[in-house]
Amino acid sequence: MSAALLRDAAERAGGRAAERLAQVRALLGEDMDAVDRALARLTRDGVSPATDSATHLLEAGGKRVRPLTVLLSAACFGTPSRTARELAVVAELVHLATLLHDDVIDDGDERRGRPTPRRVWGNAVSVLAGDLLLTHALERAALAAPQAVLIDLFVTLRRLVDGEVIQLRGRMFLDASEDVYFRIVHDKTASLFAWAARSGAVVAGAPAGAAAALAEFGARLGVAFQLVDDVLDYVGDPGATGKMSLADLAEGKLTLPLIRAIAARPALVSDVDAARAGDSRAALQVADAVRASGVCDSVRVLARDETARALASLDAVPPGVARDLLGAIAHDLASRAG
Amino acid sequence: MSAALLRDAAERAGGRAAERLAQVRALLGEDMDAVDRALARLTRDGVSPATDSATHLLEAGGKRVRPLTVLLSAACFGTPSRTARELAVVAELVHLATLLHDDVIDDGDERRGRPTPRRVWGNAVSVLAGDLLLTHALERAALAAPQAVLIDLFVTLRRLVDGEVIQLRGRMFLDASEDVYFRIVHDKTASLFAWAARSGAVVAGAPAGAAAALAEFGARLGVAFQLVDDVLDYVGDPGATGKMSLADLAEGKLTLPLIRAIAARPALVSDVDAARAGDSRAALQVADAVRASGVCDSVRVLARDETARALASLDAVPPGVARDLLGAIAHDLASRAG
Repeated sequence: MSAALLRDAAERAGGRAAERLAQVRALLGEDMDAVDRALARLTRDGVSPATDSATHLLEAGGKRVRPLTVLLSAACFGTPSRTARELAVVAELVHLATLLHDDVIDDGDERRGRPTPRRVWGNAVSVLAGDLLLTHALERAALAAPQAVLIDLFVTLRRLVDGEVIQLRGRMFLDASEDVYFRIVHDKTASLFAWAARSGAVVAGAPAGAAAALAEFGARLGVAFQLVDDVLDYVGDPGATGKMSLADLAEGKLTLPLIRAIAARPALVSDVDAARAGDSRAALQVADAVRASGVCDSVRVLARDETARALASLDAVPPGVARDLLGAIAHDLASRAG
Repeated sequence: MSAALLRDAAERAGGRAAERLAQVRALLGEDMDAVDRALARLTRDGVSPATDSATHLLEAGGKRVRPLTVLLSAACFGTPSRTARELAVVAELVHLATLLHDDVIDDGDERRGRPTPRRVWGNAVSVLAGDLLLTHALERAALAAPQAVLIDLFVTLRRLVDGEVIQLRGRMFLDASEDVYFRIVHDKTASLFAWAARSGAVVAGAPAGAAAALAEFGARLGVAFQLVDDVLDYVGDPGATGKMSLADLAEGKLTLPLIRAIAARPALVSDVDAARAGDSRAALQVADAVRASGVCDSVRVLARDETARALASLDAVPPGVARDLLGAIAHDLASRAG
């Protein structure tokens, strides 16, 4: 991980994260530097202002947890290959492309504490910048990945789009169902983490059982990550997390805390509708009701359960520093401070 | 070509097109039916309303000239293979994906005489439907295409995005330069036609010289096609062409007739600015000025020159029905009635 990102992440997350990143750096410093260099080069490879928009998003930071997952999965089976590095780059490019398009879809104004690219350059540029990064990602994958990993990536991309469409549909017609919520989380978030973990293992020559276990690890990590993210929308400190409080609510997304709060008190729906329509006083009332209901604790418990299952799936992976770091990262993500 | 499309195209374009389509049908009827079936299936392969939006666009018609180019190029060297059919599907999927995103970028309201998908389902759905079709296209290409054709496709996709970004930039800052216009036409339109013609030849085992000649044919066909399209925005009969008159002007696109009219009469810029800002009276004045200036004839002459060069490049291709049909299609497209 680059020195600037390391410092930035350490400042945001405190001493524990700094220690973790120093461990990662010792194991994968060169690989992550190469990934960072490739990402910086590829976000500039095109025509301005699409490249400005992509670079702005890249430089806003982010934890690079998807590339790290690819590399650590590979490192469970030896020194990561050049192919593993390429797939690490692919994972982050796909993620960045979805962020660019998501912000257009959600009318998102802020991300990682900075204005979204679409606020700076407009929706049209973000659509094209997302297309550009997706093209770069698939070009690299098509050239570097074995066919099974490539097919798996296309299945994952279709799931990313499906999850996004289902989420959009849920915002048009209020459907506060946990089933729909988990379908969206599996498609939109868990699928790319699962691909990252599985493909790192596959290109490192992992046995099928271990690769499947890492895919399960990745999927569960993704679910836990999203659950914590959703809780932080209600209880988070924007200064610490870089997330804008109540952003999901304002964008009309039905997250699990909200779904559970509505289930406990159906009358909340009228305030939710008002909040979705832009009434900020109603949004604050909804947030207070969600916090008072205690559902955030129940969602945190779920996130911890999911993390515990993710860690259990690592039993099928050879022990070592790489496996320990995967476990530690899962633990850190699940217990992010709010 | 399917019976419905055949009838539709014949009604729109009169007897000559019907005769041409009957010739195509005799040579490639089964292939084009297979392509149509695959397109119908793939635009439905995903989650509603993204699939509704993609299907709506597919069913709005279109000439399927890109798949036809792939298949006819392949047919110059024997019976088209299954791979050629797959690439024909890829060419149309890429084209449809770019239309979905283009309409979002351009605030396009009408296409082929029907409301654009984004008017019916909204911008967010069109962004996702475009992502879905692009994913389907690249998945099929990655599985079917030889590596050289695949690499060529990625280069083409980057050019499509670059061309779109440059066009967008030109709309933000009025830059009435013919160089910029031709760069956009080459990137946005000619590159995909060139890929279609070249890849059909390559997978049919064509000698390198003949494949390069077909790529040149495709690129020149694309340029001629765009030049005629731009003229039809001024002199076209919307009933015959399905194009909304003055759509390009309203979207702020600088087409060659407009660029040449401004060069001949710089004072026109103030009306152009007003038209771009939504003043429909100014738009009519600009259109009158463009028509009166005689530039449309000069652009038609350019289109005919480009078509003549396209036809000349076919000299390096083995003679036969397929080559004759490529030439006939180039001729038909370049002389579309306005």
